Amino acid sequence: MYGAVIHAPGDIRYEEREDPKILAPTDAIIRVTAACVCGSDLWPYRGAEPVHQDTPMGHEYVGIVEQVGDDVKTVKVGDFVVGSFWASDNTCEICQAGYQSRCVHAEYIGMGGTQAQLARIPLADGTLVATPGMPDPDLVPSLLAASDVLGTGWFGAVAAEAGPGKTVAVVGDGAVGLLAILAAKELGAERIIAMSRHESRQKLAREFGATDIVEERGDEGVAKIKELTGGLGAHSVVEAVGTQEAMMQAIRSTRPGGHVGFVGVSHGVDIPGLELFFATVHLHGGPAPVRQFLPDLIDRIWKREIDPGKVFDMTLPLSEAAEGYKAMDERRAIKVLLTTED
Amino acid sequence: MYGAVIHAPGDIRYEEREDPKILAPTDAIIRVTAACVCGSDLWPYRGAEPVHQDTPMGHEYVGIVEQVGDDVKTVKVGDFVVGSFWASDNTCEICQAGYQSRCVHAEYIGMGGTQAQLARIPLADGTLVATPGMPDPDLVPSLLAASDVLGTGWFGAVAAEAGPGKTVAVVGDGAVGLLAILAAKELGAERIIAMSRHESRQKLAREFGATDIVEERGDEGVAKIKELTGGLGAHSVVEAVGTQEAMMQAIRSTRPGGHVGFVGVSHGVDIPGLELFFATVHLHGGPAPVRQFLPDLIDRIWKREIDPGKVFDMTLPLSEAAEGYKAMDERRAIKVLLTTED
Repeated sequence: MYGAVIHAPGDIRYEEREDPKILAPTDAIIRVTAACVCGSDLWPYRGAEPVHQDTPMGHEYVGIVEQVGDDVKTVKVGDFVVGSFWASDNTCEICQAGYQSRCVHAEYIGMGGTQAQLARIPLADGTLVATPGMPDPDLVPSLLAASDVLGTGWFGAVAAEAGPGKTVAVVGDGAVGLLAILAAKELGAERIIAMSRHESRQKLAREFGATDIVEERGDEGVAKIKELTGGLGAHSVVEAVGTQEAMMQAIRSTRPGGHVGFVGVSHGVDIPGLELFFATVHLHGGPAPVRQFLPDLIDRIWKREIDPGKVFDMTLPLSEAAEGYKAMDERRAIKVLLTTED
Repeated sequence: MYGAVIHAPGDIRYEEREDPKILAPTDAIIRVTAACVCGSDLWPYRGAEPVHQDTPMGHEYVGIVEQVGDDVKTVKVGDFVVGSFWASDNTCEICQAGYQSRCVHAEYIGMGGTQAQLARIPLADGTLVATPGMPDPDLVPSLLAASDVLGTGWFGAVAAEAGPGKTVAVVGDGAVGLLAILAAKELGAERIIAMSRHESRQKLAREFGATDIVEERGDEGVAKIKELTGGLGAHSVVEAVGTQEAMMQAIRSTRPGGHVGFVGVSHGVDIPGLELFFATVHLHGGPAPVRQFLPDLIDRIWKREIDPGKVFDMTLPLSEAAEGYKAMDERRAIKVLLTTED
């Protein structure tokens, strides 16, 4: 089979790889229908994370089950499936508490690379969710979004306790931030402030439910959020970037007693304890337990209540993965969908 | 009147001070029945915080209302009152959400110093709670504890979401940590692990409800908590120290999805963002909104359901405040009660 492999920062190649095999009786092999490029894939692409060796890329996926191990019971060959970017048994105490991304048997799907024609999914029963049938082609982008970027934005909004009567601010206008806006809207937030200075992203933010746009960043952004919230700060703030500036902007934009949900993978972030103490906010985040939300998200997509697939503003064949990375790196695209269909 | 004043690290003097006066119509003046020395008072005493000028000390208090401003309606002259160490209007949006310590009109009671015969309490209606009558003398220590150290330990347990079915670990065996144990017990926690290596404190921890004692600290302490919790970590951990080691011990002792309640005033703490991200815990803390809990805590004390006053293992006349500081600094006392009665 063929798949995308990073050789060095900036060097993504579509090349032949060995077909994945069933290694454990709980594995499944899926034929990938679509994968995509994640904001986190840009860290090694940009050299912000080291590339020690040639590494298969990708951890988001939808596809059709091609083969299952002997112990797999809930998905079968031919099913169209969506899965989380963390494999989980979905039965341990941590999973049962809703933290499948930290399952005691968690495996990172990115290890195998889903930007490929085939992918091995460990712990298939606990990781994959089958759709009610074969999806209409126009639903595929939204189902793919559920695999990570929607699930992550959703977790950010849940962690920030977005809900009725709440003012929610979202730091970051990448795909995760934009889908945190959609999530906040679905969760019933009263007011949703998108922090964005890019016109195309502002437009999508409004489509997803943003009621206000704040273009300022840092201290000025915080001042603007305070101004919009009677001097108090937002009830709920989602941090969807992962930098020091974004994290502090999120904490400082939150009112005392409010909630920060952080889902940007932290790069060089250090939170000063004394400031956090006097901020008196709730802080919760981490790798999103997407599997917790998948059945509900698939249901909302299947009923066409939400259209998270709109974050994909570029579609390329998987063979052109390198161009997809380039477009996202240069911010020409919010998020790139890679299709294995010809 | 007389009160305790710090002149320099290690130099506490009982000296004549000007009588406090009503400055705003929402003020009350109370005659202090008892005050005490807080762990946080030891920071300047030990030189860990600078002493720029002679400063009146103390922020914990119970007493009898001696005078009220024209706008004070809920307490009257002669009432026995307990108050929070932060004055709050108890009516603003932040107070109504339960975060009175971050009231939009919050004033730190310690500014005036309650280790004195008289104290001015701003925003008396929103800060003070009258007891149902004059307390029996043996209730005074417990009521005094409610003013800060019990309220703070209680907030730590609430912030850590201690409750039925939960395993709670408490980092720190000072008065706040010990009362977080009492709070966890009252809140219905199933198992309470005290992290303490002092025999007298272990004994009190057990009296307050600790089911297990862990003497190890740092990585070894974390390993022990994991060992006691099937490898997962505690559901709820209270951090009641305020140092880097204690904060990291708390975060690392908590299972994914669990809750850290931190109430130790942070001194030099920096939380690494990437570790917090992958810990996937909830982190909440700050100056305790004691006023939120006071009516309930007074009720429990009045009914003799709890006896938090046990944390006072030394009682001195206010005139010997300096000895009280010395005893706590040298860890000869857990907490010192200072009485104004002769």
